[in-house]
Amino acid sequence: MTAHPKDALVLFMPSGRRGRFPVGTPVLDAARSLGVYIESVCGGRGICGRCQIQVAEGQFPKHGITSSNDHLSAFSDTEARYVTKRGALQPERRLSCQALVLGDLVVDVPQDVQINRQLVRKRAETRAIERDPATRLCYVELDEPDMHKPLGDADRLLAALAGEWRLDAPRIDFRLLPKVQKVLRAGEWKVTAAVHDDGRGPQVVALWPGLHNVACGLAVDIGSTTIACHLTSILSGRVLASAGAPNPQIRFGEDLMSRVSYVMMNPDGREALTKTVREAIAVLIAKVAAEADIEADDIVEAVFVGNPIMHHLFLGIDPTELGGAPFALAISGALDFPATELGLPVNPGARIYTLPCIAGHVGADAAAATLAEGPQKSDEITLLVDVGTNAEIVLGNRDRLLAASSPTGPAFEGAEISSGQRAAPGAIERVRIDPATLEPKVKVIGDDTWSDEPDFARVVEDLGVTGICGSGIIEVIGEMYLAGIIDEDGVIDGALAARSDRIVQHGRTWSYVLWKADPARGTRELRILQTDVRAIQLAKAALYAGVRLLMDKIGIETVDRIKLAGAFGNYIDPKYAMVIGLVPDCALDKVSGVGNAAGTGARMALLNRGYRREIEALVRRIEKIETALEPRFQEHFVAAMAFPNKVHAFPNLAAAVPLPARKSDGGDGTEGGRRRRGRIRRTVE
Amino acid sequence: MTAHPKDALVLFMPSGRRGRFPVGTPVLDAARSLGVYIESVCGGRGICGRCQIQVAEGQFPKHGITSSNDHLSAFSDTEARYVTKRGALQPERRLSCQALVLGDLVVDVPQDVQINRQLVRKRAETRAIERDPATRLCYVELDEPDMHKPLGDADRLLAALAGEWRLDAPRIDFRLLPKVQKVLRAGEWKVTAAVHDDGRGPQVVALWPGLHNVACGLAVDIGSTTIACHLTSILSGRVLASAGAPNPQIRFGEDLMSRVSYVMMNPDGREALTKTVREAIAVLIAKVAAEADIEADDIVEAVFVGNPIMHHLFLGIDPTELGGAPFALAISGALDFPATELGLPVNPGARIYTLPCIAGHVGADAAAATLAEGPQKSDEITLLVDVGTNAEIVLGNRDRLLAASSPTGPAFEGAEISSGQRAAPGAIERVRIDPATLEPKVKVIGDDTWSDEPDFARVVEDLGVTGICGSGIIEVIGEMYLAGIIDEDGVIDGALAARSDRIVQHGRTWSYVLWKADPARGTRELRILQTDVRAIQLAKAALYAGVRLLMDKIGIETVDRIKLAGAFGNYIDPKYAMVIGLVPDCALDKVSGVGNAAGTGARMALLNRGYRREIEALVRRIEKIETALEPRFQEHFVAAMAFPNKVHAFPNLAAAVPLPARKSDGGDGTEGGRRRRGRIRRTVE
Repeated sequence: MTAHPKDALVLFMPSGRRGRFPVGTPVLDAARSLGVYIESVCGGRGICGRCQIQVAEGQFPKHGITSSNDHLSAFSDTEARYVTKRGALQPERRLSCQALVLGDLVVDVPQDVQINRQLVRKRAETRAIERDPATRLCYVELDEPDMHKPLGDADRLLAALAGEWRLDAPRIDFRLLPKVQKVLRAGEWKVTAAVHDDGRGPQVVALWPGLHNVACGLAVDIGSTTIACHLTSILSGRVLASAGAPNPQIRFGEDLMSRVSYVMMNPDGREALTKTVREAIAVLIAKVAAEADIEADDIVEAVFVGNPIMHHLFLGIDPTELGGAPFALAISGALDFPATELGLPVNPGARIYTLPCIAGHVGADAAAATLAEGPQKSDEITLLVDVGTNAEIVLGNRDRLLAASSPTGPAFEGAEISSGQRAAPGAIERVRIDPATLEPKVKVIGDDTWSDEPDFARVVEDLGVTGICGSGIIEVIGEMYLAGIIDEDGVIDGALAARSDRIVQHGRTWSYVLWKADPARGTRELRILQTDVRAIQLAKAALYAGVRLLMDKIGIETVDRIKLAGAFGNYIDPKYAMVIGLVPDCALDKVSGVGNAAGTGARMALLNRGYRREIEALVRRIEKIETALEPRFQEHFVAAMAFPNKVHAFPNLAAAVPLPARKSDGGDGTEGGRRRRGRIRRTVE
Repeated sequence: MTAHPKDALVLFMPSGRRGRFPVGTPVLDAARSLGVYIESVCGGRGICGRCQIQVAEGQFPKHGITSSNDHLSAFSDTEARYVTKRGALQPERRLSCQALVLGDLVVDVPQDVQINRQLVRKRAETRAIERDPATRLCYVELDEPDMHKPLGDADRLLAALAGEWRLDAPRIDFRLLPKVQKVLRAGEWKVTAAVHDDGRGPQVVALWPGLHNVACGLAVDIGSTTIACHLTSILSGRVLASAGAPNPQIRFGEDLMSRVSYVMMNPDGREALTKTVREAIAVLIAKVAAEADIEADDIVEAVFVGNPIMHHLFLGIDPTELGGAPFALAISGALDFPATELGLPVNPGARIYTLPCIAGHVGADAAAATLAEGPQKSDEITLLVDVGTNAEIVLGNRDRLLAASSPTGPAFEGAEISSGQRAAPGAIERVRIDPATLEPKVKVIGDDTWSDEPDFARVVEDLGVTGICGSGIIEVIGEMYLAGIIDEDGVIDGALAARSDRIVQHGRTWSYVLWKADPARGTRELRILQTDVRAIQLAKAALYAGVRLLMDKIGIETVDRIKLAGAFGNYIDPKYAMVIGLVPDCALDKVSGVGNAAGTGARMALLNRGYRREIEALVRRIEKIETALEPRFQEHFVAAMAFPNKVHAFPNLAAAVPLPARKSDGGDGTEGGRRRRGRIRRTVE
């Protein structure tokens, strides 16, 4: 397009999209023609207040723009009417459907449009997600019935939507037909339609009389232990409420395989597990809806993620095939289907989207985490791990992405550990051991006081010291290794009993007393047994071997970045994860917990169907590695039993943390060398 | 494409499509590349037997082809195996997936492919309908699960369908997912999928292990009086069974408006009417399925038509708005939706299609009749009328098509007529009156004997003479007019009582005794009263006025062809329809009953989605005339009260039938003139 003298240059931020528009163009139209997403429910009538923008004033020499509010038409009567009816706009805010381009502009599209003095409770997860939801609200005003043009009421609604909202051949959900006429008359021919389009054409799925300015979606992560549910406005993108609850399927089996067994052993097992999880989700939905003060009818979309077995059970699919080789998923692709039949308290026309599963043990949750973290968008080789009873591993960069799962077992969740427990107040989550005295100090969940601080007595009375949670186990094993209490093979050094009463015999092996019983305060002794160390070695070796297999496939010896997803991953201190060799070597400042990445990915798919297409295409492209079929898995596994590893070097870790020397050499050239001490007869195992 | 020396010319009949193909091309592939529809379920494996063809041998100079069975490859081992397993092919028949083109061919695509020694009961309606059904059976063989490529079972199924059947991004109905794995394993990775695609992309809606060679559809016409159901194979196009039943909604109200009133007056009225009609349809479906010896699961498609009120009630839509101006339909467009929720005994994945309604009183049944009769494909101006309590009228040709309805009332159905009754055995359906003696002879439904034949006594004993049905009423009024018993204004001539004891006083008016009571045989007297003549005059005038309005719009004085649809239309003698002026003048040999045209249209939409698009586009194009809004309706109505009409001439009729002279002139220049007789004092009305 050649610039016309009457054209103005408009730059939209944060997208950076720009274009020239004739003077007099509404800012909303300019944005749309550039593909800049600005929400609008009322279709430019200045009544929904969703399309707010703000002009950035000043000189922008880089863009060749001098932007000023004077380059926007004056505050219109429609805007004044909006303010009267709905309340003041924030300072400098304008309705982009009313404000006309008069000259060059830099336009900020705010991410926090607030209308209706709506109650908002902010949550931790505040990542702004670019929006292009599969379901949109479209307000239309239609003609009354006309005997001369006897088009049905629903047909005139569809025609109005096609015309005003440029929808291509919209349809209407058959189940809405019985209420169309009542709604149209109740709204006096002004209605708001929720229109869903996820690649098979637009379809009206819900209808309200008049302007309806609320539409919400759910992002639900169905974990085998915990279900997390986030209620999000699909108009503003904002999280309105979040809630979590234990997965009640636990009563049918603690871990995934025991639930599959339950299904295999009980004729109605699958039905029971499906019903249970759907009911729990229904309760969570009602809870977040109540907290955000919205109606069930306002929920028009829901995205669900979960590991393959959770995914199948939620969908009502028998997961038996996932219980044994070849671990065949019933469906791996993404699904988009009506929410009816699931018994959830949502709009009867609501749609459900499930992200694709990557493989038989790498689920839609891993796909969602990948979507959220975007390793495929970086040159850096990223390792993304969700540690659970089955660790889900994704490794790669923009060139190549691989995925696998490793059967770590439940050790990291506190099971199989003599003093282990689930993460709960009173559980030890942080541990430091003085290498000179071998005396530990600990912190428990629920309080930030170390056990060597005077105030800790109060903590013990309030919370107790009840056991060791997953992240605490990682730390205590790591610290025991760093303090020389266990050697690289994981053997507890009984000779140290001479130096410390913390080292005590336990049957034919040795143990370390992490917490001494305090009968006065009602705490029992918490010990790390040789079998506990072994359980952690097995679990971490399995995970590491899986990661290493993927590294072999790419042909790398080191990764650029490590992201630990999930609740557990978020609480592990990356340093100790590396010290015990749970993950490969990496610069410590490049290792981080990324929280509920699966939940974030679900929210992205909820708010933008582009992300759905992105993850669907990406999952097809991901190379799936089945660890059980790889001959080198066993070899890596054996090497990974050692701390941090028998074969692979950890130069980044060694540079940051003084590691004990290896038995096999005289030192590793680091400070760790100075901690080397004489070999002492090993306890018979 | 330039002809290659190794190319052969292949002509397919009856489509007439032709093309050149390399020697060695399977005939099925040649057909497909020309868009010639040949069914195939197994995808060319020679096991389903659906793709049979036959070579027409001989010289076809017009096409430049010498066709011979020698130009086809020899009977293959696969065909021999088919014959062994499934039974002999008819003589000369070949499987087109196995027979290869070796030279020039004229190929007949038979319309009666018979396989599996399948039971077929032929029905009257045998119109061959070109096929391109929205749901097809697709047999595929897929790979077993592979841990190296952990694509879900359903995903591999979709991939196989996409590859073998060239489906573009097929999806699978979410509700099938729980059974996918079981069916795939039961079929040992060979399965038959029913794939539905009606414009929004292919979707698997049903699944069977192995080769499944049966797929049926229903064409259902929901009349306010009668429901008709045709079970059709969507593989062969053949009607397998038909059944009809009274619409049990009658107990809520005889006519349409009384059913609408029932809904308005009763809080659960709509639910009751919907439930009743769906249950009746379910019974009919079970009946035709049993008759054709197929499973409910084999029914994968259903097409429904009906007038707007039947259509709405079936869909669960409150028809109250149709009870008064502006007669707003909830939906006028065509619908395609899953059969679930309707409680019909069909495959859970079956799809329902409803044809569009034309206007508030011109329903999907009229659209279906239009589709079946195709007035829009002809240069001739065709009048298509479905006579009922609301006559649905379509008029026009390829240039222009108009539709309207006329409120004829229930007179034609025998109601409002003193001796009227529904069409049933014993009802008078044919009448002749001797103009000299005024003696009538009649025939009753159920026997072909005239009442002046000796054998009629037996008929009276067997069936009785119970009343006069709709077509009988038309004839008796027509004959009374032709015999001079009533004049052009419909007045019964009391002076004739002097000549015949059939003319008797009835209150202050006269009447005609059509059947004399015969107490010995238990029959009562059947009279035509002056009020009966008036009722027919009102009804026929309404219909005629509607037709005439449409003729005015086009600007014509005569129509080229008249088609009378529906059960009633089929039984009316066109001559009498014209004599009483129910329809405008037309050459008598161009007036015909077309039977259940709505049912045929439904069957066309069932077997070919092209017809769906055709009728959807056509209905948008039809000009809808609301008679109530047309000032000239009243004028036409008044003129049409006379026999055949006060204003409009009936030259074609007059040329064929000796009509009585008009009062207003001295004769109409026809033979009718000779019947003119002196005016006699009219009975006071």
